[in-house]
Amino acid sequence: MALGMCNRNANKLPSAPTETGMSRLALSDADKQARDWFIQTTQALGCHTTVDAMGNIFAVRAGMRNDGPPTYVGSHLDTQPSGGRYDGILGVTAGVEMLKVLTDNWVETEYPVGVVNWTNEEGARFPMSMLSSGVWASAIPLTTAHCLRSIHYPHPTVSEELSRIGYLGSVPCSYESMPMAAHFELHIEQGPLLESSARKIGIVSGVQAYRWYTIEVKGKETHTGTTDLKNRADALLSAAKMILHSHRLATTHSALASTGILTLKPGSTNTIPGSVSFSLDIRAPADTTVQTMDHHIRRDFAAIAAGEDILCSNDYCTPSLPCSVSIRTDSDSPAVTFHPDCIKAVTEAAGSALGPDAEKLTMETVSGAGHDSVYTSKRVPTSMIFVPCRDGVSHNPREFTSPEDCALGAQVLLQSVLRFDKMRADRRVTWNYPGK
Amino acid sequence: MALGMCNRNANKLPSAPTETGMSRLALSDADKQARDWFIQTTQALGCHTTVDAMGNIFAVRAGMRNDGPPTYVGSHLDTQPSGGRYDGILGVTAGVEMLKVLTDNWVETEYPVGVVNWTNEEGARFPMSMLSSGVWASAIPLTTAHCLRSIHYPHPTVSEELSRIGYLGSVPCSYESMPMAAHFELHIEQGPLLESSARKIGIVSGVQAYRWYTIEVKGKETHTGTTDLKNRADALLSAAKMILHSHRLATTHSALASTGILTLKPGSTNTIPGSVSFSLDIRAPADTTVQTMDHHIRRDFAAIAAGEDILCSNDYCTPSLPCSVSIRTDSDSPAVTFHPDCIKAVTEAAGSALGPDAEKLTMETVSGAGHDSVYTSKRVPTSMIFVPCRDGVSHNPREFTSPEDCALGAQVLLQSVLRFDKMRADRRVTWNYPGK
Repeated sequence: MALGMCNRNANKLPSAPTETGMSRLALSDADKQARDWFIQTTQALGCHTTVDAMGNIFAVRAGMRNDGPPTYVGSHLDTQPSGGRYDGILGVTAGVEMLKVLTDNWVETEYPVGVVNWTNEEGARFPMSMLSSGVWASAIPLTTAHCLRSIHYPHPTVSEELSRIGYLGSVPCSYESMPMAAHFELHIEQGPLLESSARKIGIVSGVQAYRWYTIEVKGKETHTGTTDLKNRADALLSAAKMILHSHRLATTHSALASTGILTLKPGSTNTIPGSVSFSLDIRAPADTTVQTMDHHIRRDFAAIAAGEDILCSNDYCTPSLPCSVSIRTDSDSPAVTFHPDCIKAVTEAAGSALGPDAEKLTMETVSGAGHDSVYTSKRVPTSMIFVPCRDGVSHNPREFTSPEDCALGAQVLLQSVLRFDKMRADRRVTWNYPGK
Repeated sequence: MALGMCNRNANKLPSAPTETGMSRLALSDADKQARDWFIQTTQALGCHTTVDAMGNIFAVRAGMRNDGPPTYVGSHLDTQPSGGRYDGILGVTAGVEMLKVLTDNWVETEYPVGVVNWTNEEGARFPMSMLSSGVWASAIPLTTAHCLRSIHYPHPTVSEELSRIGYLGSVPCSYESMPMAAHFELHIEQGPLLESSARKIGIVSGVQAYRWYTIEVKGKETHTGTTDLKNRADALLSAAKMILHSHRLATTHSALASTGILTLKPGSTNTIPGSVSFSLDIRAPADTTVQTMDHHIRRDFAAIAAGEDILCSNDYCTPSLPCSVSIRTDSDSPAVTFHPDCIKAVTEAAGSALGPDAEKLTMETVSGAGHDSVYTSKRVPTSMIFVPCRDGVSHNPREFTSPEDCALGAQVLLQSVLRFDKMRADRRVTWNYPGK
C-alpha cells in the first residue's frame, strides 16, 4: 500500500525560513488553526469527530464490526515555544495519512480505527506534560487540569483557553466515555541511538521514569551595593548551587537532572533576588533511581539553603544568612512497560516493511522522553514506534527526520494498526486493564 | 528654623497596607503622578520649573543675585519594583520642604536655589542606573539613553515613555543648558553602619566604584529526557557555575558581586536552555579592585563556558559540550571623591544641627551605592548626607527611617545649602570643573 505523505526527495535540512521550526503552544491561536485543520481533514475522510472536556480530538473511521472500541493512533499537535516540525506532529499527521490510505484504497477494518490529538502534551505553556491523556486515564483530576495556569502573562487557565478557542468539548474526558482498544504512537526518537547505529525503526518497549518539581528559594531582597556578602540571603546564589548540585547528583547516580525554567523577583540589577523559582526534571530508567535522587535532592537542597556545605559548594564562599527552600512535585511518571501484543504488532509490521534486513534495521528501545502513550498504557494496550532524528536534536527548530524515514514510520504505524485489528478479530479477546 | 515635614510620632514600621513599600518604576503612570505633584507643589511655592530632554525636572527659587547658577538639592522619585518609601524620595521631598521653609520664613538666599528630580536613577525599568544625571553630565550620550528599552514587555524605549507621559522636555539635557553651582543630596544610608554605631548623620566623602555587566551564555536547546549529560551544552548550568564563581571572586578580593536579573530561553521544563542572559554588578571601594575582578571574570567565565575547571567547578560533574559566553559592560562608575567645600558645608551644618554631641553623632563615610551625585560630582561641587535606615534594609518594602531622622537629615540639608550659598557670596569664586 503506497503512502503519499512525503513528496520531498532531498534528505537534508530545508533552508527556507518557513520550512524549519514550529512554535505552536497548546491552546494558542496557532493551535486552534491546527485543530480546525485536523477536524476538517478527518471529517472530509468520512470520520466522526468528538471533542472532549480537555479539548482532545478523536476522529473515528467505522469498521465492519462497530461493536468494539476503536484502535487508535495518537500523538499531539502542540509544540515547544521554539520546537521542531516532527515531535508529536509526525504521529498525528501519520495517523491522518493512515485514514487517507484506508479510504483511498477502500480498506475495511474489522473494528473502527481512529486518530487522537491530545491537548498540551508538551507541558510547555501549561506546566504539566501529557496533561490531557493524563486526565483521560484518570491519572490527573479534571479540576487540576482545568485550573492549571499558563506560565505566560496574563496566566489564563486551561479551561479559559479551551473556551476561548472553542475547544471545550461537552463529552467527559475519560477512558470510559471515549474507550480505546489500543493506542499506537509514531514519534521521532529525540535521541541519537537509532541514527548512530544506522537503524531505521525503534520498537519501543517502555518509557523511563521521571519526576518534575518546582523549587522555590526564599532569601532577602537587599541593595547590591550596600549589603556586604556576610549579611546577604541571596536566593539566586543559593539556587545556582542547587542547580549545580542536581547535575552532580545525576552524574553520581547515572540519572538525568535538568532545569528549563527559572524566574526571580524582584528582577533588578542592583537588588539581590529575594525569591527564585525553578523547574527540576529528574529521569532514570528505573523508578528506584528516581526515588534515590528525590531523597538526596530534598535533603541536600534544604542543607544548601541553610548554608551548609554540600560537595564543596561553600569552598571559597563567604558564609551568609540562610535562605529557605520548598520543593513541590508537579508530575511523577514511573517507568512504563508497554503491552507485548502491541510490541508484537509493531515488530511484525516493521519486519514486513523492511523485509529481509529487518533485524539489522530495527532495535528494541526505551523512550527517554514521556509521551501520551505513557498514560494510555495505564488503561489500554499501547506501544510506540520511533524513527531516527538527525543528531538526536529535538525541542529545537533544527529537529529533522528525512521524508523517507517519516514515510517508513507511517508505513509501520499503519501496518501495526491493521495487524492489531486482525489480532482482535482472530482472538475475540478483551484486554484486562484496571477500570475496564 | 522649624521643619514641618514629619508629623508622625511613632518610631516604628507602619502596618497599614498603603503605608509601606513603593512600586514606582521610572516613566510609569505612577511616576507621572509623582512628577505632576512635584511640579504643582514647587510652582505653588513660587518656583520656576523646567523639564529637559531626559524628563529631569528642575524647580528653581530666585535669589537676591540671579547672576549665578542655582545651588541644587537633588535626588529621584523613581523606585525599585518592590522598593521602599525613602530611597531617592527622601532627597526630593526634603528639597521641597527646604523650598517651603525658605518661602514660609521669607528667607532670601544670595543665589537661586533649586530642587531637581532625576529620571530613572534606579535603572530598575531601564537597565542603566543614574541614567539622566549621566546624560546631564555628558557621561552618557542622549541617543543611548533615549533608545534604552524597558526590561518589561513590550519593551518601550525611554523616549517613547517620556513622550507617552508628557515629560519629553525641549530643553537640552546638559550641564551647560541647566548649570548648577553645587549639588547636595540627602539619602538613606541603605546599609547598617550608622544604625549599628548609633550615629545620626553620615557625611559622605565619596562613592565606591562599580561596574555593571550583561552576560550572555549560549548553549544548545535539546530535550531533557533524551539528551544524556555528556551531549549537553546547558547554558543554565554554565551560568549557575559563573554566578557561584563571581561570588567566590568577590570573597577572594573583598569586593561585592551580585546577579539581580536572569532570563533564559526557551523556558520549558523539558528543554535544556539554549540561551541565558544575566546581570552582574561588581563593586569595591577602589577602582583597582574592580579592574582586577573584571580581569578574572572575563578570563574565568570564558573558561567555565568552554568546560574548564575553575576552583573545582567541575568536581563530580559530567564533562559535556562547550557553551560560549559574551560579556557586555553596561555601566562603569569609578570611585568618586566629593568636593571638600561641600563636605565642609555638610560637616558644619551637622555640627550646628546636633550641637555639642555632633562629633559622637556623625561619621564620615563612603557610599556603597551609586547615586545621581556620582554624575553631578563630575561637573560641579557635590556632597551627600546619609541618615540611618533600619537594619540596613533598602530596595525592599521594609525600608524604614524614623520621622525624627528624616527631619534631622532635612535640617542638615537645608543648612548645607544655606552655608554653601553664603560661601559663594563671601568668596565670589567659580569652581573649576571640566567643561565649565
